[in-house]
Amino acid sequence: MSVLTLANLGEDALVHRLMQKVPLAADVLTGAGDDCAVVKSLGKGWLQLLKTDCVVEGVHFTRGTKSQRVGWKALARAVSDIAAMGGTPDHALVTLLAPPDRKVSDMVQLYAGLRKCARKFGISIIGGETSGSPVFAVVISLTGRVKAAHCVRRDGAKAGDEIFVTGRLGGSRRGHHLDFIPRISEGQWLAENFKPRAMMDLSDGLAKDLPRMALASRVEFVVQEAALPCNKNCRAEQAWSDGEDHELLLAVSPRISRELECAWQKKFRKTPLTRIGFFVPKGKGSAPSFSGKGWEHFKRQPRESAKSD
Amino acid sequence: MSVLTLANLGEDALVHRLMQKVPLAADVLTGAGDDCAVVKSLGKGWLQLLKTDCVVEGVHFTRGTKSQRVGWKALARAVSDIAAMGGTPDHALVTLLAPPDRKVSDMVQLYAGLRKCARKFGISIIGGETSGSPVFAVVISLTGRVKAAHCVRRDGAKAGDEIFVTGRLGGSRRGHHLDFIPRISEGQWLAENFKPRAMMDLSDGLAKDLPRMALASRVEFVVQEAALPCNKNCRAEQAWSDGEDHELLLAVSPRISRELECAWQKKFRKTPLTRIGFFVPKGKGSAPSFSGKGWEHFKRQPRESAKSD
Repeated sequence: MSVLTLANLGEDALVHRLMQKVPLAADVLTGAGDDCAVVKSLGKGWLQLLKTDCVVEGVHFTRGTKSQRVGWKALARAVSDIAAMGGTPDHALVTLLAPPDRKVSDMVQLYAGLRKCARKFGISIIGGETSGSPVFAVVISLTGRVKAAHCVRRDGAKAGDEIFVTGRLGGSRRGHHLDFIPRISEGQWLAENFKPRAMMDLSDGLAKDLPRMALASRVEFVVQEAALPCNKNCRAEQAWSDGEDHELLLAVSPRISRELECAWQKKFRKTPLTRIGFFVPKGKGSAPSFSGKGWEHFKRQPRESAKSD
Repeated sequence: MSVLTLANLGEDALVHRLMQKVPLAADVLTGAGDDCAVVKSLGKGWLQLLKTDCVVEGVHFTRGTKSQRVGWKALARAVSDIAAMGGTPDHALVTLLAPPDRKVSDMVQLYAGLRKCARKFGISIIGGETSGSPVFAVVISLTGRVKAAHCVRRDGAKAGDEIFVTGRLGGSRRGHHLDFIPRISEGQWLAENFKPRAMMDLSDGLAKDLPRMALASRVEFVVQEAALPCNKNCRAEQAWSDGEDHELLLAVSPRISRELECAWQKKFRKTPLTRIGFFVPKGKGSAPSFSGKGWEHFKRQPRESAKSD
């Protein structure tokens, strides 16, 4: 009799199973399943965003990666999720798991990277936890806030909405995954000026994340493969499935999409905003021809190369 | 030339070094160094408590520990820190690091334990993160709230204050560390009725935690060894240094301590509140005769026996 393992089940199905029957109070507006949880803790008109994220040696970075870059990446990943809701990050807690024989100087460098990212985005690092562990890993907890009227979730896309991505995709493993700049300004500007119907952070690759947005929104999608904005020396298939782009994926009503494109060009000259397809009713979608499936969190063996420099 | 490792430096010195120069905004009332961070995010008169904590296989529990008990312990540890501030827990995020070949049924059991603890204390489990990892570990992020007037920190003890502990200490490794009940009711009652000058959670043992309270409060202590409330079949030395008691340690002005003892006996009949010593000015303290030093997070080798069943 075979035993069902995490590798067999996969992340999305695991999360779906684990989050059944978890207690949720009336002040929880969005629980598991979006980029951040959304709760009504704050004063009137504001919502609190809560996020946790982690990087693990051998999975998200290699042993040889400079600790300062690991620190930047660890915090920037969580900031990117706040950006995807149109929010502003506030307070971070840092849990450090490390083998006892690790050098103190590595941890000091890690914190230099964490502080650099915190300063750039106005985040206070207010504490955390440390523990001995056989593996080196950094877990970030981040709070943020967003005006209730500007909070964007991933489940509001409608058939007919156009699909956009910020920036360029693919090839992140060459180094971009360690020094990307979360799209906080862009996310806030979008939420305040052209409130997208849905928005999310591209962390596991379009191949994984676009179907998640479609599933949450109960629609399907058509992607124009030739339209994918690729990083230099990347093919469209890499833009589709490499992952760790940390760009924003958004759904916009066709009634405002031309106006958005013009306003975006004036505001963010150096960063493209690209229409890559559109949402359609269930049963009308078509899968791209690419074979890549995006990042799977529970591979049988952590792939050193996949999410590392 | 020898390299300074985490095991050489130890946790407290590491945290002190890492938290230097971290950015802190004006809304942060207490950063690293107390049981929880305290921020002014909430409405007028309320403070938000933020906490992260972790359990790692081979460090905080053994491979053979039932996953449901691991889940309870993981969340209860963080709840205990909210209790130590006089607070009420609100929202939890769960980060799950697990080897891909782990059984899904273990994770389902883990969540049964998390849910049980969440229900008991009115906590919403609002999401989290999962990642493949060579080691199994659970990291909890927990928010809470406390009325500003009732928030108790660890740094307010004064020379002359009496030192109390709730419950009995020692021998937690026999199983108590997996099923202890965080002192939420007791912490709230104390904060509201007899606001202690200082309070904290006993997680690493009196031997480690009492000096932390004294250091934060700029005082020293005298402990009456014979007064330590010991669990059955435990010696005073174990009550001093075993750790993972998750009882409350508090400093109370001698002007109200008799009244507190009487009121406590009426309110919490089954749980002792024991005076174990008093705080004295710097230079007047005396170390107990015990050799045990409490729990050190960065031992060279994680001790399977120390924090496990």
